[in-house]
Amino acid sequence: MEPQVIRAIQDDYPDEFAWCYGCGRLNEQGHHFRTGWDGDKTVTVYMPRPEHTAIPGFVYGGLIASLIDCHGTGSAALALHRKNGHEPGSGETPPRFVTASLHVDFVKPTPHGVPLVAVGTVTEIHPKKWKVDTEVFANGELCARGQVVAVVMPKTFVRG
Amino acid sequence: MEPQVIRAIQDDYPDEFAWCYGCGRLNEQGHHFRTGWDGDKTVTVYMPRPEHTAIPGFVYGGLIASLIDCHGTGSAALALHRKNGHEPGSGETPPRFVTASLHVDFVKPTPHGVPLVAVGTVTEIHPKKWKVDTEVFANGELCARGQVVAVVMPKTFVRG
Repeated sequence: MEPQVIRAIQDDYPDEFAWCYGCGRLNEQGHHFRTGWDGDKTVTVYMPRPEHTAIPGFVYGGLIASLIDCHGTGSAALALHRKNGHEPGSGETPPRFVTASLHVDFVKPTPHGVPLVAVGTVTEIHPKKWKVDTEVFANGELCARGQVVAVVMPKTFVRG
Repeated sequence: MEPQVIRAIQDDYPDEFAWCYGCGRLNEQGHHFRTGWDGDKTVTVYMPRPEHTAIPGFVYGGLIASLIDCHGTGSAALALHRKNGHEPGSGETPPRFVTASLHVDFVKPTPHGVPLVAVGTVTEIHPKKWKVDTEVFANGELCARGQVVAVVMPKTFVRG
């Protein structure tokens, strides 16, 4: 059975930060990635849409990159939130991260039609900057590895 | 004026390899990225859809990663095709690449509502493996830098 994310950090983002095409709950057209804790690992589960193909039968790499990207910022938000003494669903507003850099190694063609499970390991490298190593599995097989460096969203990202 | 891609390598891919969500001309839901030569540089131009937001007013990073990804494989295909003596539109079937690794550095928040212009520099590192360095501009400003290592599509990617 695939892991289910019950309490996701994205559910607690303030409304003005909930429009991300990847993980914004208010973006009707988006993927609605949801990222939560599984012990000291982070998890995002996503079923690619029929059109998310590279060639028929295999998942589009840009979708996998998007999954790793949002899983990374969500994982960093989870980690800083926990460091601050909070968990998703506890009522406090979590920090909101953006991606400084994204790296993806495509290990093998990713089969389409099964959920993708991204599993992350989070490391603090600065109070406002975190590194998230991610492995993406399909049918329990490792298909891609990724790394995100995420930084707390700078004020320049918000228009007055 | 933004550069226009008149002859794109993706227009010449065989039908069975034209389903990529990023750059497949037959994928009705996809982005339809199109990549062509501009001298010895490669160019892809794309106008993000209204929903492709990170937060309102700025482009989603996963979309930028997707653009760099498909621009990379398209650029590699252009380069190997030219090495083989062909140009897009000349009637020969071009090679089809897949991404081995993708790296993106997000330089600054990318404004939404203007075309993104990806400009690539292609380097051969192996007869079946190419490196594509890409810069992504919005309003003429550099917003992201990327690197793709692309390999000729292995036979394991095609189901019998």
